[in-house]
Amino acid sequence: MVMKKLINSVDAIVTDTLRGVAAAHPSLRVDFENRVIYRRNAPHQGKVGLVSGGGAGHEPLHGGFVGYGMLDAACPGEVFTSPVPDQMIEASKGVDGGAGVLHIVKNYTGDVLNFEMAAELCADEGIEVASVLVNDDVAVQDSLYTAGRRGTGATLFVEKIAGALAETGAPLAEVARLAQEVNERSRSFGVALSAGTVPAAGKPTFDLSDTEIELGIGIHGEPGRTRTTHREAREIARLAMDAVNDDVPLSGDTLVLLNGMGGTPLLELYIMYGEVAAYLEEKGARAVRCLVGNYVTSLDMQGFSVSVCRLTDELTRLWDAPVETPGLRWAADRPHG
Amino acid sequence: MVMKKLINSVDAIVTDTLRGVAAAHPSLRVDFENRVIYRRNAPHQGKVGLVSGGGAGHEPLHGGFVGYGMLDAACPGEVFTSPVPDQMIEASKGVDGGAGVLHIVKNYTGDVLNFEMAAELCADEGIEVASVLVNDDVAVQDSLYTAGRRGTGATLFVEKIAGALAETGAPLAEVARLAQEVNERSRSFGVALSAGTVPAAGKPTFDLSDTEIELGIGIHGEPGRTRTTHREAREIARLAMDAVNDDVPLSGDTLVLLNGMGGTPLLELYIMYGEVAAYLEEKGARAVRCLVGNYVTSLDMQGFSVSVCRLTDELTRLWDAPVETPGLRWAADRPHG
Repeated sequence: MVMKKLINSVDAIVTDTLRGVAAAHPSLRVDFENRVIYRRNAPHQGKVGLVSGGGAGHEPLHGGFVGYGMLDAACPGEVFTSPVPDQMIEASKGVDGGAGVLHIVKNYTGDVLNFEMAAELCADEGIEVASVLVNDDVAVQDSLYTAGRRGTGATLFVEKIAGALAETGAPLAEVARLAQEVNERSRSFGVALSAGTVPAAGKPTFDLSDTEIELGIGIHGEPGRTRTTHREAREIARLAMDAVNDDVPLSGDTLVLLNGMGGTPLLELYIMYGEVAAYLEEKGARAVRCLVGNYVTSLDMQGFSVSVCRLTDELTRLWDAPVETPGLRWAADRPHG
Repeated sequence: MVMKKLINSVDAIVTDTLRGVAAAHPSLRVDFENRVIYRRNAPHQGKVGLVSGGGAGHEPLHGGFVGYGMLDAACPGEVFTSPVPDQMIEASKGVDGGAGVLHIVKNYTGDVLNFEMAAELCADEGIEVASVLVNDDVAVQDSLYTAGRRGTGATLFVEKIAGALAETGAPLAEVARLAQEVNERSRSFGVALSAGTVPAAGKPTFDLSDTEIELGIGIHGEPGRTRTTHREAREIARLAMDAVNDDVPLSGDTLVLLNGMGGTPLLELYIMYGEVAAYLEEKGARAVRCLVGNYVTSLDMQGFSVSVCRLTDELTRLWDAPVETPGLRWAADRPHG
């Protein structure tokens, strides 16, 4: 083995990752045969079950967001490859507590087709399924793996906020409507300084010179909008935020995810967050809630994405509701000061 | 600017990072002039104040661990450079609630000298200071920046567990004794697949070929024990854990930090954690608590470190106590299932 990855073999990546997740998190239950990560006590009677999934390589998305107040199950595919309908059906059965199941689907052709097929087969078996399609990335209309806009960072917003509403016992139609609203109120844009390396390929997905960056990059190394010369953090933040603001003018209270793509130090993410917060203020908007860190990654890609959700009182309240997952956790009555 | 980092300039890195931290975390108060990150409401009367600090580039260490149940203040130096005594004195004054201050110092020559000088000057001003030296890294005796063993991942254990004890109102001597005990019960070992790039240098700290890894690497790119050929995750885990186990035989209940060095995907860290948990089981030990992720980093270095603390009932209870910081948070009564 020459490619330098911390793996046993390319074929064993997902199995070995699941083994580590199972060992690390007693709050989760891992079905190795069907490749599903569940909340330990799923299903929860009377609660809408939330299922998401997608290719591996974006961790902590989605498996790291399974737990109280967020997802009930996640299905990982191979690296950058959609999970199969059988996984989604198994997960839906496993989380159905009689109140139906919401599928949270990032807009990539493979994921969309497989979740659609799974939803139909679930219906045949008497499980009520609703779906929400996340397509927050303003960078490109259609791309290598997508018809329409890609789903990226806002997936975390949808999973957290819909998950909080589901914990209150809200019915499926209401949880689905809210998930849709979160997606509609959210926009994202990503910038790459270098590509990630897919283990099966063994080399970076694309090449950028020492002076180039790629604007509007997706989470699989698919092409963005354009390449440009590297520049100061402040200017890069402006390029990204202008793209968001051109799509929907920013105002009022916002929730911001300043997301690392996997290979960028937290120090640089904080520098970018400072620039983004200043940009918002300049536009008369405010970042009243935020996350800074690696949440929706692309293997070891260097770069960041910024996602902004224009908040309402309801969304803020549900964002603040307690959550307990490996990747995101806080308590309602958290001590402060 | 040709080096591809998300920065405005090399000189502004720490200032701009602090600006982002201040914007992101209303639970913290940033003193930009003196470069200190405080808990918003510091000092807390009657509570021992915990201060740590070190060069930037290891985020979330230390600033990300300021908050309820952990540090009261952190002083960042320039990248991979010790903070100066003035910062430490200012921080100590700012967190002294009359019960004294504990300095948590990683064993690097610059940090040790500066914290010693600060402690003396604090004493002159009537602030009682105790210090704990963290030196958990079994890789090498003496190295580029250290006499004796280096302080690495166990710093997080010391900060969390001593922080929890301090919240109970325990006196300084007791908090210092416990911090020392946590350090003594902890061991770490790191492995690099590639070096990080210090912004002021503009190129990787060292070069590894496509087939080499470095065993026993520190958190500044300083040399480790040896270089060897890259191999499967299982074998690399064994090399790291053998080094720990040779130093102090592993048994009983342990707390494990499977730490990313900054540029390694979470997916690979979970694979490594699965191997480490299996190794412990083979030795008759158990990982009863763990963290998997980027906690004590080295800019964008690819690789991992593993830290193991042999738990006691007291240490387990204090580890489980609530904590609310940007980088580590959980509640006592967290919902489960």
